[in-house]
Amino acid sequence: MSSEQTAAENDAQKDEPFELKRKTVAAILYAVECRDRAQLAELMEPLHAADIADLLEQINTYDRARLIRLYDREFDGDILSELDESIREEVIAILNPHVLAEAVRDLESDDVVDILEDLEEPQQEAILDVLEETDRVAVEQSLSYPENSAGRLMQREVVMAPDHWSVGQVIDYMRESEDLPEQFYHVVVVDPRLRPTGNVTLGRIMGSRRDVALTDLLEETFEIFRADLDEEDVAYSFNQYHLISAPVVDEDGRIVGVITIDDAMAVLDEEHEEDILRLAGVGEESSLADKVISTTRRRFPWLAVNLVTAVLASLVIAQFEEVIAGFVALAVLMPIVASMGGNAGTQSLTVAVRALATRDLTGSNVWRVIRREALVGLVNGVIFAAVMAVVGILWFGSPALGGVIAVAMVINLVVAGLAGTVIPIILERLKIDPALASGAFVTTVTDVVGFLAFLGLAAAVLL
Amino acid sequence: MSSEQTAAENDAQKDEPFELKRKTVAAILYAVECRDRAQLAELMEPLHAADIADLLEQINTYDRARLIRLYDREFDGDILSELDESIREEVIAILNPHVLAEAVRDLESDDVVDILEDLEEPQQEAILDVLEETDRVAVEQSLSYPENSAGRLMQREVVMAPDHWSVGQVIDYMRESEDLPEQFYHVVVVDPRLRPTGNVTLGRIMGSRRDVALTDLLEETFEIFRADLDEEDVAYSFNQYHLISAPVVDEDGRIVGVITIDDAMAVLDEEHEEDILRLAGVGEESSLADKVISTTRRRFPWLAVNLVTAVLASLVIAQFEEVIAGFVALAVLMPIVASMGGNAGTQSLTVAVRALATRDLTGSNVWRVIRREALVGLVNGVIFAAVMAVVGILWFGSPALGGVIAVAMVINLVVAGLAGTVIPIILERLKIDPALASGAFVTTVTDVVGFLAFLGLAAAVLL
Repeated sequence: MSSEQTAAENDAQKDEPFELKRKTVAAILYAVECRDRAQLAELMEPLHAADIADLLEQINTYDRARLIRLYDREFDGDILSELDESIREEVIAILNPHVLAEAVRDLESDDVVDILEDLEEPQQEAILDVLEETDRVAVEQSLSYPENSAGRLMQREVVMAPDHWSVGQVIDYMRESEDLPEQFYHVVVVDPRLRPTGNVTLGRIMGSRRDVALTDLLEETFEIFRADLDEEDVAYSFNQYHLISAPVVDEDGRIVGVITIDDAMAVLDEEHEEDILRLAGVGEESSLADKVISTTRRRFPWLAVNLVTAVLASLVIAQFEEVIAGFVALAVLMPIVASMGGNAGTQSLTVAVRALATRDLTGSNVWRVIRREALVGLVNGVIFAAVMAVVGILWFGSPALGGVIAVAMVINLVVAGLAGTVIPIILERLKIDPALASGAFVTTVTDVVGFLAFLGLAAAVLL
Repeated sequence: MSSEQTAAENDAQKDEPFELKRKTVAAILYAVECRDRAQLAELMEPLHAADIADLLEQINTYDRARLIRLYDREFDGDILSELDESIREEVIAILNPHVLAEAVRDLESDDVVDILEDLEEPQQEAILDVLEETDRVAVEQSLSYPENSAGRLMQREVVMAPDHWSVGQVIDYMRESEDLPEQFYHVVVVDPRLRPTGNVTLGRIMGSRRDVALTDLLEETFEIFRADLDEEDVAYSFNQYHLISAPVVDEDGRIVGVITIDDAMAVLDEEHEEDILRLAGVGEESSLADKVISTTRRRFPWLAVNLVTAVLASLVIAQFEEVIAGFVALAVLMPIVASMGGNAGTQSLTVAVRALATRDLTGSNVWRVIRREALVGLVNGVIFAAVMAVVGILWFGSPALGGVIAVAMVINLVVAGLAGTVIPIILERLKIDPALASGAFVTTVTDVVGFLAFLGLAAAVLL
């Protein structure tokens, strides 16, 4: 895509920037319908690979297959990289093997790894077979690192320089190299045993005289990652220390690759997606393109857990059947107490889960945070208790009922604040993802406590 | 921080990487307690500004004030940049004005803007006053752009070159410049009217011969942002097109600054935080360091909305008081139907809100997604209906009750799937943030429909 085309595209999209236009999609589908290969190529030409991937995700399976077959020879490796895992396999199966080989050969090693790690064995083999020998070895080495590790994330193409070099030497070296990586931002300075000792930005190299020593230009902030480090820790570090690129080393501290900020940004984005979906009990669902059956299957477990929770709460209610039979207003009001507790609990829980994810909730402030949440529950509890007391009195004409619901509300909101904070912290200590499991526990607590406090007090006071 | 220190620190933290150690925090607080300035400086020295900011956020107000007063002269501008807004004002108020002036003068213009925009008028003035004339003008110009716009996000320091220059000319120019920005990754090529026409990476400049024309080295992917564009659109573009830096232009298309990926990453991170907190009804709460009162105040509105919702649901129940009085098992079972609906609705809603945020849910696939969600609700509804029918029969010995809860379950889960998708889409069209408002609407629907279907059917069948 040339710069003029992109600029023109920007102009056209001024009212609805950076989004696949419905009109573009319709025109492309029409070209597919008419089997008009030339028109299709023309419409797709100005689109970035990421936009083409989005397009493929948004249309249905039937259109997708027809579009890919018609577009075939133009199919770019970058589109595969950008595609969501859930339909990447489908697309690879449709692609002509020659086109697939061509597409994959153009990619950098880290992108090939990214594609391969989600594929089934036979498809993996098929792709490895079409790679050139050196690329294949590089990819297989990367795949030998654990899943979601720095080793999988890094690219193996590194620009490095010995620590005794000057600016002039490194410039001459770069000018003579045939195969500099497409994107790089630092020269990594290494000692004689290939252990990285610092980063120098290209900008500082360009702005310095030829005789300046590289070691005089080292960046202040410099982080090194072990290849087996979790990619989540890598992303955290990039975000926390504003890194642009960082070397990856093996267990002997020797450099084996480099991770750049765009890879870290992608990990961060995935982590966020995971957190938000797990909090809602949606599991690992990753795409709108997922089918009904796989979506149903992914959501089922959390609904099943919720059913158990709900039945537990019902068992509590069942203990008070007689009280309710004698005083039906209780049945009308009891969901209010449980619902308020559930919501207050979710608020505390979300703040705690988020703070744990960003590592802001630590041993240093855990007690202060727990105390704060309990106090917030208490203050809001008292306010809503007053409101509900009035509602109880006005609606049912019973001050006793008003008092019962008020006290139950205070109890449940304080418990919600405590449970919403303590439960995620305990799960984190037990190495269970708090985003995944906290919701069910917290709602169980607020439901049970809500019904128990309200109906129990009612039984004591009203009968 | 020198590279050796960082490496040493990495070693020390191998078991618990990239996290403020509880021991470090304790040692620092002990030094503060003893008023041991030298010891404090020594403990703080290896810490990155971002870690010092985290430390200040995690300790309490009293310790914070004492630490800042003791650390005073060493206080770095970057710490201010990294601090959470909620305590930045507090820290600025504690800092000695001379130290504050020194700290702020060291920062780049975009960081000063970032600090200033969250401050009250008098504190803003105090900081603007200590800046040098040129910096002050630059900062004031940035502040003239709308909040959360590309203009606020950009840095004004740009390295650019006319489009007729060669590699040699741009290298000579950079070597002669006194004040290259600290971090830059591209040279922006501009036409004679200062309109950007392309980016050239420093890597390509270094790898090319001196006589090569800059225009032969332009990056394939090139995006230009208007200064008044929303920062959310900027972050989306950086993420979607893997940009590293991009020029910002005024309404005449002339370059006024440049945005780099680390700024975009910070925006993306903020957006995610906002989404996750809004979904949970926590509002804009940004920090664990917030006080009880401000936290209570932020969470109150959503709890109030939830109370209205819950009362609405109670009104529905109240219509069936007589039915319940005659058949108390209904009171025991009714929360199950509502709770399952609420959870299924939250699942659909979260997927929809997330897809809207990442612009994956568009006109092209909206109907397919709605149909999928309804079908997923139907399938899960039928499964849980069967389970509940059995529970109803075994527990209460009433096949009629089992049938009623089964049918109500199917109805409510289909409605949950529909409401969870349609409501966020409608809110988005109405320009209301779906993350903020969908939850309350969806739970209202699932509560009301749940109670109405279950109790209504019960009234028809059981009486």
